[in-house]
Amino acid sequence: MYLRKNNKNRQKSYKFMRKILIIGAGKSTASLVRFLAQKSQEQQLEITIADKDLKQAQKMTKFSEYLKPESLDIFNADDRQKAIKQADIIVSMLPARFHIEVAKDCLKFGKNMVTASYVSEAMQALDNEVKSKGLTFMNEIGVDPGVDHMSAMQVIDRIKNQGGKMLMFESFTGGLVAPESDDNLWHYKFTWNPRNVVVAGQGGATKFIQEGKYKYIPYQRLFRRTEFMNVPEYGRFEGIANRNSLQYRDIYGLENIPTIYRGTLRRVGYSKAWNVFVQLGMTDDTYIMENTKDMSYREFVNSFLPYSPTDSVELKLRHDLKIDQDDLIWEKLLELDLFNPDKKIGLDQATPAQALQKILEDQWTLQPNDKDMIVMYHKFGYELNNEKHQIDSTMVSIGEDQTYTAMAKTVGLPVGMATLKILNGDITRKGVLRPIYPDIYNPILKDLEEYDIKFKEHMVEYLGYNIENVN
Amino acid sequence: MYLRKNNKNRQKSYKFMRKILIIGAGKSTASLVRFLAQKSQEQQLEITIADKDLKQAQKMTKFSEYLKPESLDIFNADDRQKAIKQADIIVSMLPARFHIEVAKDCLKFGKNMVTASYVSEAMQALDNEVKSKGLTFMNEIGVDPGVDHMSAMQVIDRIKNQGGKMLMFESFTGGLVAPESDDNLWHYKFTWNPRNVVVAGQGGATKFIQEGKYKYIPYQRLFRRTEFMNVPEYGRFEGIANRNSLQYRDIYGLENIPTIYRGTLRRVGYSKAWNVFVQLGMTDDTYIMENTKDMSYREFVNSFLPYSPTDSVELKLRHDLKIDQDDLIWEKLLELDLFNPDKKIGLDQATPAQALQKILEDQWTLQPNDKDMIVMYHKFGYELNNEKHQIDSTMVSIGEDQTYTAMAKTVGLPVGMATLKILNGDITRKGVLRPIYPDIYNPILKDLEEYDIKFKEHMVEYLGYNIENVN
Repeated sequence: MYLRKNNKNRQKSYKFMRKILIIGAGKSTASLVRFLAQKSQEQQLEITIADKDLKQAQKMTKFSEYLKPESLDIFNADDRQKAIKQADIIVSMLPARFHIEVAKDCLKFGKNMVTASYVSEAMQALDNEVKSKGLTFMNEIGVDPGVDHMSAMQVIDRIKNQGGKMLMFESFTGGLVAPESDDNLWHYKFTWNPRNVVVAGQGGATKFIQEGKYKYIPYQRLFRRTEFMNVPEYGRFEGIANRNSLQYRDIYGLENIPTIYRGTLRRVGYSKAWNVFVQLGMTDDTYIMENTKDMSYREFVNSFLPYSPTDSVELKLRHDLKIDQDDLIWEKLLELDLFNPDKKIGLDQATPAQALQKILEDQWTLQPNDKDMIVMYHKFGYELNNEKHQIDSTMVSIGEDQTYTAMAKTVGLPVGMATLKILNGDITRKGVLRPIYPDIYNPILKDLEEYDIKFKEHMVEYLGYNIENVN
Repeated sequence: MYLRKNNKNRQKSYKFMRKILIIGAGKSTASLVRFLAQKSQEQQLEITIADKDLKQAQKMTKFSEYLKPESLDIFNADDRQKAIKQADIIVSMLPARFHIEVAKDCLKFGKNMVTASYVSEAMQALDNEVKSKGLTFMNEIGVDPGVDHMSAMQVIDRIKNQGGKMLMFESFTGGLVAPESDDNLWHYKFTWNPRNVVVAGQGGATKFIQEGKYKYIPYQRLFRRTEFMNVPEYGRFEGIANRNSLQYRDIYGLENIPTIYRGTLRRVGYSKAWNVFVQLGMTDDTYIMENTKDMSYREFVNSFLPYSPTDSVELKLRHDLKIDQDDLIWEKLLELDLFNPDKKIGLDQATPAQALQKILEDQWTLQPNDKDMIVMYHKFGYELNNEKHQIDSTMVSIGEDQTYTAMAKTVGLPVGMATLKILNGDITRKGVLRPIYPDIYNPILKDLEEYDIKFKEHMVEYLGYNIENVN
């Protein structure tokens, strides 16, 4: 039924259909599939979308004859290997922990591979073998990680090529609600996995380096140690530190940089209000609460407050966290209907974080006409010809709708572009890769501009920090 | 050299020396050894103190001919079994995790055993076998656990025997510095393992039940949710919740009690100041800091504060945690010399908690003439003849010196008493036990009074909580 591939004749002429296997038909796959489908006639692409849930795959394949749905349980090794063997390149859009099995099969059958996920230790361990077989396993080519790497490395390499010395690198990304759909006091809705938002920052202290000094922020202070920044036309945001910024020194070739800091963007005021949940213990995901099935929102809140027969839950919370009645935080809590005695958590055996997520989803779920937004902000401090400079670079992408969200676009497009460029021999670098090399990031960033994913640079006064070591 | 034991003839007449093997010659062993040594002639006891460090054992045995030091590596199974086989009863004063190997040998050779540690799951699992061999493995017979169990169960059983119904049980214990040696602003010195003090409350949310409502306190709020109580003649203390109070419902036979709460005592004001360390992240024991060998106390503090070239470490800390300059917390921090730029942590690869411990040990180490103090406070709320009552019961024990500390006495004496009573057939209950039965706690509590370890009871107005469920 399908044309047979011919490895010797992959470049340009496309006498034969080239087969792309996409494994996993999740949220971020929509834009990837549309991108490839639009190129499929010209480029002679036959795209198989394989998912455990055939219906999910069928939903994505119905609008082009070049798209084929397939039912695939990736835990079935025979089926998985058969599917991989038949393809020319494999895109794994599975949850990160499942890539490694796909990767081993790609190695076995000599196939190139693309993922949007962080390079795991197991994946990194394949590097030598991948290189020796002349293969390309491209990873971290979504938005964060992905677009952040490419846009940062392009500027860092340019500064270095000019003879500059990097002094500071800060980078922030946020998945937010678009301004036109921003109708709550938190200026936030869930645009991706809500669970990751609720437990963000947990699992160990945040560590970074500023002016050569190591800094540590415990979880209980994380949402009080934010940094403000302005994005032209979009206003003010706040950055919350990510857990480990330091590993990027090696990855970006910034080994001796005195300041490196990565973070997540929210609208100003989000963190101060979120800190209420952190302080009360509502974001804890390590233990199961009693009776969460029948627990009201009000009882949930009261579980974290002292017992007092004479005081309301509201006053106990306000007193405990010293929230004045005219503080906007209070309005934010009321907006979530946190003190409702009738609404039930309704989950069996829930952790506090799961119960909180349930409450937040009532208010923070994107509505059918809502659009999401990805915002990225880089700061590059450097010294050139004995003068200090700073470039701030920003990118904003707004979703089209609930299928082609900004998140799906900024993840799916670079994945699709990398897939095509590897397939077409435009990217030839071998090994287990991140898109941190000019031969990868330059052509992809250029293509992304056509889809309005582009960075605006501004020279700003070098803010940096002191050199006299005042502390 | 030693008289042979004769199992058939153990009671009262003591024709033969009875052999007690004490494994582990740590801090809490001193009072135990003195107690047994004082009884050894009358009771014909031959007491072997076995420790990996023979010198440590020799220090303890020099003042009585009935005491024998022995070098014993408990990881050497042959030596361990040989020592256990020769004894009539074994007291394990080892760290809790090592008891199980001793217990298995005791089972093998049919020996009774005593420990001051919590019953581990592995120990509990031996219960049937211990019973079927007619043996007694007495555990949790130190101070906390131990004296707390006995003193609480004596009152609880009395209330139940009178026909009362338990409504509330709260229990607090603190190891503190005695009033005559209390010369710092924290009113605290390390009287036991400093590490346990620094990491106290970590490892999961604190869980308890109040008026039938489950309550959860996250670590970051633990030291702000204290409860005050007055101990006659000793003034005011504050109680900090222990992690899991709920397991005591089963152990104490209080399955349906609406309020149960266990905690740790400190002098008032300790927790509010300690919370500074918690909030800054200084008590974190989960990661290694950079450069702790050469890090000054001041740099340590600065690691947890934002970078700011224009501000001092002092002002940053005060601003970050909103500490007014006339707040006593500030004096407490200064007293610890926390901002000293010359004093070094001096530890390789230290966690924040280890570094903090080092700083605290400078100020909080007991001096040669200092005495320690154990304080215990129980509250029993109950209903009898349709009236609500409350008994508060307190105990204070002051150490003699740095050897016979209050901690060593309150741990060692009940261990020694239980050991003798089992040896003499005065305690005959079989199995893996806690001292929660009248046949155990009554005689031991009576004996403890001779050593001035006694509880004072006060009827107080039933404070309880409301019954109208206001929240």
